[in-house]
Amino acid sequence: MTEQARIEGVYLSTTLDLEKLFSPAFSAHAQTIRLRRPEEIEDPSAISFALCWNPAPQAFAPYPNLKLASSIAAGVDSIINCPSLPPEAYVTRVRDESQGDLMAGFAAWHVIWHHRNMRHHIVHEAKHEWSRQWTRAFLPPGRCTVGVLGYGIMGRAIARAVTAMGFPVVAAVRNEPDTPPPPGVRFEAGEGAIERVAAAARILINVLPLTPATRGILNAEFFQKMPHGASLIQLGRGEHMIEADFAAALDSGRIASASLDVFAVEPLPPEHPFWADERIFITPHQASDSSSELMAEQVMRAASAIAAGKAPETAVDKAKGY
Amino acid sequence: MTEQARIEGVYLSTTLDLEKLFSPAFSAHAQTIRLRRPEEIEDPSAISFALCWNPAPQAFAPYPNLKLASSIAAGVDSIINCPSLPPEAYVTRVRDESQGDLMAGFAAWHVIWHHRNMRHHIVHEAKHEWSRQWTRAFLPPGRCTVGVLGYGIMGRAIARAVTAMGFPVVAAVRNEPDTPPPPGVRFEAGEGAIERVAAAARILINVLPLTPATRGILNAEFFQKMPHGASLIQLGRGEHMIEADFAAALDSGRIASASLDVFAVEPLPPEHPFWADERIFITPHQASDSSSELMAEQVMRAASAIAAGKAPETAVDKAKGY
Ligand SMILES: NC(=O)c1ccc[n+]([C@@H]2O[C@H](COP(=O)([O-])OP(=O)(O)OC[C@H]3O[C@@H](n4cnc5c(N)ncnc54)[C@H](OP(=O)(O)O)[C@@H]3O)[C@@H](O)[C@H]2O)c1
Ligand SMILES: NC(=O)c1ccc[n+]([C@@H]2O[C@H](COP(=O)([O-])OP(=O)(O)OC[C@H]3O[C@@H](n4cnc5c(N)ncnc54)[C@H](OP(=O)(O)O)[C@@H]3O)[C@@H](O)[C@H]2O)c1
Repeated sequence: MTEQARIEGVYLSTTLDLEKLFSPAFSAHAQTIRLRRPEEIEDPSAISFALCWNPAPQAFAPYPNLKLASSIAAGVDSIINCPSLPPEAYVTRVRDESQGDLMAGFAAWHVIWHHRNMRHHIVHEAKHEWSRQWTRAFLPPGRCTVGVLGYGIMGRAIARAVTAMGFPVVAAVRNEPDTPPPPGVRFEAGEGAIERVAAAARILINVLPLTPATRGILNAEFFQKMPHGASLIQLGRGEHMIEADFAAALDSGRIASASLDVFAVEPLPPEHPFWADERIFITPHQASDSSSELMAEQVMRAASAIAAGKAPETAVDKAKGY
Repeated sequence: MTEQARIEGVYLSTTLDLEKLFSPAFSAHAQTIRLRRPEEIEDPSAISFALCWNPAPQAFAPYPNLKLASSIAAGVDSIINCPSLPPEAYVTRVRDESQGDLMAGFAAWHVIWHHRNMRHHIVHEAKHEWSRQWTRAFLPPGRCTVGVLGYGIMGRAIARAVTAMGFPVVAAVRNEPDTPPPPGVRFEAGEGAIERVAAAARILINVLPLTPATRGILNAEFFQKMPHGASLIQLGRGEHMIEADFAAALDSGRIASASLDVFAVEPLPPEHPFWADERIFITPHQASDSSSELMAEQVMRAASAIAAGKAPETAVDKAKGY
């Protein structure tokens, strides 16, 4: 294949140095596609695709022939919501079952963090104190229902890990699937499903995608549905949660403890009050990640499909938002 | 049933106030059995069973008709090794599948602690620092083998939880079982099985019972078999591990990080150097516990079986030691 035949792409991100992070992974596909920084592009009309993460509002504007905007991860909200995204462009995401494993381990870790009050051990270890907790004071796993919002690649992997530790899982689905749920999992479907999951769960995990329907879904009204003293594990998107409503739910005791991995503003500023709150465990948007190699391969395939006039397999439904 | 017909027992422990902890659970069986402290017993010859945890060396001596010594938990080593245990007495343990769930969650938590370097987040959260780790630097779960020593109630539950998070498991068994291992689990059987598991595992979990064959099994020779930079999760008994050998393996980098829940001397003294070592996470013998109610019921059944001249279902093999 000659140099001219390569498919030309551009890195577009306001928050990550995508070239530094991903050019090694794309080197395996150098014969097929070429990715460069915006300032390296001489002829913007040659650019047919972009690799994106939090693109600037006008990031897509210089490229009249852009037909594909690929996310480096599962989330596509920052791309779909970008005002300069050409209406006819495909948006793709990474679909990585092994990313589900990473997410499942992370979520399971936080379930145990809350169920067994593991912060107790962190605090006492730091003081060199042997301080046993009365294990029998904890709900047995079999009576501690874990709720899952967003039963997709991530939610299903989480349900698998959490049921394997003996916790019953209740998951919100939009339509009752044709196949019955796996052992230990129960579905809530249709109107009000998310609220019924909130009401049933001692520990609630959010892995919804960010869409117009889910923005701000973790709000005061929602928290009112949760049982008193429940725990929240928020791994979706910061914009799912109304921070002030969450803080009020925590102060009322409605929410006893929480793990937050995603925030409306990232990085979470050092002066943010959540940092100092012992009831909250904060991680820097690290729940899960897919391998660079798999991502590069899926982007290469999507770009090749488009060059051949076909729809990419990893395209999302822009109207639905995920 | 008249008062005289009750089966009489005694609490024997040097480390726990068994009456305070368990008399509520035994109240459900007050018609069948009665348990008292040694100082409350007028007629030691009426005592036919003991509820035990770390009994004193001469604890059993006053009771000529003792036929049963019941552990409050899964471990029976402190009872079997007690010099005053009457040779003809049965020793029983708690057999609790739901205790397996608690153990599985705890072990899974420590697997993720090491796999994802979760201490990083504890440290940076305390400083109010948003500090991402390069997730792709971690081995994908599918290539991070977890070894399990002791494939009994605890080991099987752990394997279930760990495979559900996508980690392959290799378990040491004494004899290849008739049934094939569950998906994601591989067995090493027979001579040298434990060493082959050590060699294969990036993260190694010990849940062996303490027996003459397993005492001191985690020693210098064993650690030499582990891959460089492996992690150890020690949830069995303190006497499984030679502390000095472990400290040397840690300092050589052979073992990169460890979770220790059990120790040769418990409580671990505040001046013990393990406390201050950031590579080690210490918990105060809390991996798992069974419900008081289930324990009381199994002890009541064992005592009733013996009163009826039968062997209790939960008896251990004293010769094997577990
Ligand atoms: N924190 C992190 O590091 C991290 C990492 C990866 C992913 N995530 C988050 O997790 C999200 C999900 O990822 P995924 O790979 O699991 O996506 P996915 O496979 O597309 O699954 C999304 C699921 O959410 C359901 N859903 C969408 N809108 C809903 C609504 N309004 N009510 C109820 N259910 C709804 C969908 O239901 P249908 O099947 O009915 O369409 C689908 O099952 C991502 O969008 C991202 O926000 C976070
Ligand atoms: N830290 C805590 O809080 C905590 C809580 C509960 C238990 N534990 C520890 O976990 C241990 C296991 O409990 P469990 O309920 O799983 O007991 P279990 O059901 O009796 O299982 C013990 C297993 O170990 C195997 N085994 C014994 N000796 C062995 C040897 N020399 N080599 C290889 N395998 C050997 C047995 O194999 P076979 O099937 O071939 O006999 C059996 O599968 C307890 O004894 C205790 O030390 C710790």
